[in-house]
Amino acid sequence: MRKKENISASKLKIIPLGGLEQIGMNMTAFEYEDSIVVVDCGLSFPAEDMFGIDLVIPDVTYLKDNLKKVKAFVITHGHEDHIGALPYILKEVNVPVYATRLTMGIIENKLKEHGLLEHTKRKVVRFGQAVNLGQFRIEFIKTNHSIVDAAALAIYSPAGIVVHTGDFKVDYTPVFGDAIDLQRFAELGKKGVLALMCDSTNAERPGFTPSERTLGKTFNNLFAEHQNNRIIIATFASNVDRVQQIINSAYKYGRKVVVEGRSMVSIIETAQNLECIAIPDNTLIDIENLKDYPDEKTVIITTGSQGESMAALSRMANGTHRKVSIRPGDTIIFSSNPIPGNEKAVSKVINELSMKGAKVIFQDTHVSGHACQEEIKLIYTLTQPKFTIPVHGEYKHLLAQAHIAEELGIEKENIFLLSSGDVLELDDAGAAVTGKVPVGGILVDGLGVGDVGNVVLRDRQKLAEDGILIVVMGLDQANQLVSGPDIVSRGFIYVKEADELIEEARSLIEDKLFQLLDRQVSDWGRIKAVTKDTLGEFFWRKTKRKPMILPIIMEVS
Amino acid sequence: MRKKENISASKLKIIPLGGLEQIGMNMTAFEYEDSIVVVDCGLSFPAEDMFGIDLVIPDVTYLKDNLKKVKAFVITHGHEDHIGALPYILKEVNVPVYATRLTMGIIENKLKEHGLLEHTKRKVVRFGQAVNLGQFRIEFIKTNHSIVDAAALAIYSPAGIVVHTGDFKVDYTPVFGDAIDLQRFAELGKKGVLALMCDSTNAERPGFTPSERTLGKTFNNLFAEHQNNRIIIATFASNVDRVQQIINSAYKYGRKVVVEGRSMVSIIETAQNLECIAIPDNTLIDIENLKDYPDEKTVIITTGSQGESMAALSRMANGTHRKVSIRPGDTIIFSSNPIPGNEKAVSKVINELSMKGAKVIFQDTHVSGHACQEEIKLIYTLTQPKFTIPVHGEYKHLLAQAHIAEELGIEKENIFLLSSGDVLELDDAGAAVTGKVPVGGILVDGLGVGDVGNVVLRDRQKLAEDGILIVVMGLDQANQLVSGPDIVSRGFIYVKEADELIEEARSLIEDKLFQLLDRQVSDWGRIKAVTKDTLGEFFWRKTKRKPMILPIIMEVS
Repeated sequence: MRKKENISASKLKIIPLGGLEQIGMNMTAFEYEDSIVVVDCGLSFPAEDMFGIDLVIPDVTYLKDNLKKVKAFVITHGHEDHIGALPYILKEVNVPVYATRLTMGIIENKLKEHGLLEHTKRKVVRFGQAVNLGQFRIEFIKTNHSIVDAAALAIYSPAGIVVHTGDFKVDYTPVFGDAIDLQRFAELGKKGVLALMCDSTNAERPGFTPSERTLGKTFNNLFAEHQNNRIIIATFASNVDRVQQIINSAYKYGRKVVVEGRSMVSIIETAQNLECIAIPDNTLIDIENLKDYPDEKTVIITTGSQGESMAALSRMANGTHRKVSIRPGDTIIFSSNPIPGNEKAVSKVINELSMKGAKVIFQDTHVSGHACQEEIKLIYTLTQPKFTIPVHGEYKHLLAQAHIAEELGIEKENIFLLSSGDVLELDDAGAAVTGKVPVGGILVDGLGVGDVGNVVLRDRQKLAEDGILIVVMGLDQANQLVSGPDIVSRGFIYVKEADELIEEARSLIEDKLFQLLDRQVSDWGRIKAVTKDTLGEFFWRKTKRKPMILPIIMEVS
Repeated sequence: MRKKENISASKLKIIPLGGLEQIGMNMTAFEYEDSIVVVDCGLSFPAEDMFGIDLVIPDVTYLKDNLKKVKAFVITHGHEDHIGALPYILKEVNVPVYATRLTMGIIENKLKEHGLLEHTKRKVVRFGQAVNLGQFRIEFIKTNHSIVDAAALAIYSPAGIVVHTGDFKVDYTPVFGDAIDLQRFAELGKKGVLALMCDSTNAERPGFTPSERTLGKTFNNLFAEHQNNRIIIATFASNVDRVQQIINSAYKYGRKVVVEGRSMVSIIETAQNLECIAIPDNTLIDIENLKDYPDEKTVIITTGSQGESMAALSRMANGTHRKVSIRPGDTIIFSSNPIPGNEKAVSKVINELSMKGAKVIFQDTHVSGHACQEEIKLIYTLTQPKFTIPVHGEYKHLLAQAHIAEELGIEKENIFLLSSGDVLELDDAGAAVTGKVPVGGILVDGLGVGDVGNVVLRDRQKLAEDGILIVVMGLDQANQLVSGPDIVSRGFIYVKEADELIEEARSLIEDKLFQLLDRQVSDWGRIKAVTKDTLGEFFWRKTKRKPMILPIIMEVS
């Protein structure tokens, strides 16, 4: 990285507030003098050890501290990791939201659920259109992705143009709408691009991601091969193009289609209203009417391709779905790849479906929505950026893109592998990380936003590991034991079979208490500490476990 | 499956006590009249929701109920999923253990740790040798696998011969010892094989698993390419052949070798003592002496290829390893594939290593230890079994092997997809599942074996999800409230910021208590139930969380 050179107020600041070091929680602030524009506002799903947490949103202290400067949220596309934090963040940073048509449709569904629709200014933007936001002008550029209406952004600032690809792939033959607007990328490159921020998700993968349209033939072949079976296809709820292609095959083979799973039903409805999907008349039927058609004349398109335990496919697999029972002869197609971390859950569902006699097809019915190495090279070659900041990925993905950039002749010192919170200041003369703003994940649990922090989480982890052991005792004003000590445990040991052990512990702690009280120890803190240490040591010796030990002293009047 | 025909005492019973429906906990009882021989005695690692559990062992109630019949444990190879339960099960079913040399060496290390070496009869068996065990004769047949000295078994009973492959692959050019004894499989086939029990792990994969030896060239190339870097290679602790090949490359390129990670050090020592690995003099050095050599003259072979948080490589990656700090220029090779479920942990380690400037190589430096489809076909074709029972795998793997068997002309009714606990009775006239014995997983947590069951586990899951809320109150003999109610919570909410909420709950429950006591309710069960319901409803409304609510009433004298 270059050393800081000559920082002035007229440099552009790029401040990622999330989305680096991880897939999820994408959010980047662009700041020039008195203007801040925020690109995306995503959530991330909790890590495995974040017990009980529903989702994680970015810490936006920096935006709150600079509220007057913030002009808008500009959203690249409608995936949760780009829009999911909006309902939470808008409550604190209530600025207008700009997005393309389907993206806005999905955002509006979300805002409705949170009762925020009336309180949020929204502006739908067309591809090719630019909006002025303070010192910035933001142009939306057509791209392709695993969701319709994804956009790249050209961010014009007095310090130069930044191109942000959003999540993208290059699809020359998209199912809906146009191919990525490569000409515009080229024009911007001719004009001069100060910095490129490019999707790194597939930067480790050589070659080119196949067109979404290649799956059309695959589905036709599968439908031809399974004309005597019911077909159930699981895919991502938001992949409207995938659903379109399945419906095309269904129509061709004279089948009725059921869409199942709350999130998929909602997105397909929105896509229909916005005419992003074309469903022939009399093709879609309600799940209630499924029984009126012979199996081999139906297709069910469903959520649950990631083995999510509450999704429709999982409920079909374990026999708890109210409308669909899996039968021998059913053909079940996973039109998806497991997202890292979901492999075991997906396997579980496959096993359950197989045990019910279904045929499960798992291969060659999915294409990625992200650019592989050759596509990334294409974007670099068209835009010819001076600086580059790989985005959207774990460190290894960012690093893989950095290697591509180097290969293409970008100087190493002009490639910035940023961390969330880094303040990158740049203009034509140079770029440098000049500071750090507070960032982090705010945990959402039920209605609580941020009320579960490290202390609570550590307690949950400890409780999960070895349970809890509560020691209650009552002391009167003279500091005499008038009740207890009693031991109650949960999640530690099966008490009915460990009677003796618990009684031994109880009598041990009783002796200790009498000793302490006899010696006139009246400091409750000390009594609790001795209780904890004594029982901690005792149970470790006896069981090699470390339950949380919680002494509770009650004052009895 | 065929219907039960004519069951007599002179049929052979095959009773899997684990290992079906999952990878792990392999154990099968073979019973003929008064004789039982048990093949393998493995553990499985806990599922994600088995909080705090260290490992899981099979329920052997059936063996305990038939203790007099049990002649021996016959072990196919030294992996944990085949030997790991021995130290626990031998305490209850103390019969002799038969195994090949290295397998026994590894078992003995394990028994030593548990202080069981003196109490266990052990017999080392050579390949080609057969042992008489009651009505059975068991012959050990050489195979290849990702651990040295793996054996298939020919199980001779008066009802016929069963061939059990153990875990195997066909390696024509193994690193150590001979290729799999295909001639013997053929001879047995000529004699007539009643049933085949064949490894299903890779039955979904077409083709042939490459020879372990193919990696020798890969390592040489990597060493040639990285002559100026320290090389760190992570692999499975028990893959002695892999370590051998890395040492070969190290020796060729004049590097010293450190073996790091407790389990790997132990197995390599055992392999050295048994001459299953050939290490040139002055090649192995102690980790303490690493600093005496230039980086580019050293190789560290380490555990941690699965991202296990406490393994040596993870500690190097996160900077907590006492002897090895990762430096820019280090080349780190994962000679392994992530086992399903470990993908995210492995990614984490790769990211951490990359951030420290290391180059991480992840591709093409591993081969599987299990047979792919063509190898499975070879074994079927050599042995020509009448019946077949696919083993070692989840249902989808067993099913994939069943499809292969069908393709090879085995009648569908002669293919048995068993569940653990099924009693398959068979002889030349037929085979049928005729009963069920108790099976299941016994949870091991610290020193406790089986004292954590479903109740404790459900409590841990609930505690993990939303924490616990304890309500204590003191009642005197007249059933008057003399203390409390006090509310203490852990893992529920950050209390310092939720003062008001907790106080509101406390006062709510206090009112309820006074109402109850005023109405002369003295049934503690009822008081507790009301407390639970009231607070459960209150906190769900306020937070959409469901902490465990634990009312404790103390009697004050």
